[in-house]
Amino acid sequence: MFVIGERINGMFEDVKRAIRGHKAEVIQDLARRQIGAGASALDVNVGPSVRDSTEAMLWLVETIRAVTDAPVAIDTAKWELMSDVIPRVPGEKIINSSKADPEAAMKYIELARDNDAGLIGLTIDADGVPGTIEKRVELGVQLIALAMEAGMKMDRLFIDPVILPVNVAPQNPGHCMAAISQIRAFADPAPHLVLGLSNVSQRCNNRGLINRTYLAMAMAHGLDAAIMDPFDTELMDTAITVELLLEKMIYCDSYLEAARCARVANGG
Amino acid sequence: MFVIGERINGMFEDVKRAIRGHKAEVIQDLARRQIGAGASALDVNVGPSVRDSTEAMLWLVETIRAVTDAPVAIDTAKWELMSDVIPRVPGEKIINSSKADPEAAMKYIELARDNDAGLIGLTIDADGVPGTIEKRVELGVQLIALAMEAGMKMDRLFIDPVILPVNVAPQNPGHCMAAISQIRAFADPAPHLVLGLSNVSQRCNNRGLINRTYLAMAMAHGLDAAIMDPFDTELMDTAITVELLLEKMIYCDSYLEAARCARVANGG
Repeated sequence: MFVIGERINGMFEDVKRAIRGHKAEVIQDLARRQIGAGASALDVNVGPSVRDSTEAMLWLVETIRAVTDAPVAIDTAKWELMSDVIPRVPGEKIINSSKADPEAAMKYIELARDNDAGLIGLTIDADGVPGTIEKRVELGVQLIALAMEAGMKMDRLFIDPVILPVNVAPQNPGHCMAAISQIRAFADPAPHLVLGLSNVSQRCNNRGLINRTYLAMAMAHGLDAAIMDPFDTELMDTAITVELLLEKMIYCDSYLEAARCARVANGG
Repeated sequence: MFVIGERINGMFEDVKRAIRGHKAEVIQDLARRQIGAGASALDVNVGPSVRDSTEAMLWLVETIRAVTDAPVAIDTAKWELMSDVIPRVPGEKIINSSKADPEAAMKYIELARDNDAGLIGLTIDADGVPGTIEKRVELGVQLIALAMEAGMKMDRLFIDPVILPVNVAPQNPGHCMAAISQIRAFADPAPHLVLGLSNVSQRCNNRGLINRTYLAMAMAHGLDAAIMDPFDTELMDTAITVELLLEKMIYCDSYLEAARCARVANGG
């Protein structure tokens, strides 16, 4: 399971203040602790309330790079910001994210290919988030085809079928789950399948329970990456236990501790 | 989710002692509390160490019937005991269980049909538990075909793909999950799909975590019944949350409490 830690995001108050005040230690502490908790990569999002996004994004990346070589996922919907920042990110990086409209997607795919970056492609087009499983699969397959056309390797592509909160879009979790297994079956080797997990429980009660229950369901259908909170121990333990039950590791009495150690050793 | 409470089983020390001493109040308390915790039905197993199984089974059933009309699942591998007891069980009953060999299975199917009982059919034959998904599906489909031939309604048939402990059969949880969705796709209306859930974590650490994680995975593939422990609140809350995420109920802030109340109102 490729866990992309979600905590370095300007929508969180501590991160917003750290960006404004250039408090490197706050960001570095979040980076270290997420890796220590088992994150394989770190999402980086300046949030909505920063004046110069490019300056802020580059400061965040450099601040993180001082403490870890883990891949950073540059998280913005703005093409100008993404195309400006990606060539200047040292080390492993992931573009988060592109939509699936062919013309726009191809720009992102070429940016990824030319800068040796991973790419998260959303199954969203000009019509928005699809209301059917079929349309989600169609857009996922379209992203796969475009990436292949551009000569991008499948293991650099992350398809995100876009999870919406269960309280406003009740059919959405089931649709995403079905889309994950259908998209995965489409290419061999398959791309990664990723979700912004926490979104499923946005403004819900029992967020932890909803997140970890849906993680197990989605992983059972082929999800192999998620932008999520590595500080949620029950969530991380669920991910490890799903891997046990999918035979990605062999049981021993200390399988949780063993997997936690392995995650940290590989990720940090 | 059709929860069959697993606690009235002579392998538990309190139940064994209650059977031997004819302590009705112990059994009735377990019956009431399992229904109160959300069980839809009650498994009844005299356990290995009772001398006269028929007498013990009938005593258990009568003792339970004094406090609840919930379906009882008569749990024994012995044909003589099953065929002796089933016609004498008042009210709703389920035969737990038959294997899939045609000749033996047909006896159980006719016993179920003639006594208006449900039937749990295991995907096991003379060769034992299948080592492949394909063989599990084949045996499940064989049970469906036999039941149809005998004129049994699909909603009375529960196919159990037989979960083994993850520590001794690591490929088994994945096989069962795949078999569940394939068997379910085979008949319309589909039979129920059931598992003896606790078996997945037999002699493992973190049993609760393994059980509830696997329950979410299996339900995501179409499991709609389980013999399990209704006293495990985290497990029951996981089942409710899976149903929310599969759109079997609509979110409200008190969805857990609402579902718990509904379970008890319907089950008890």
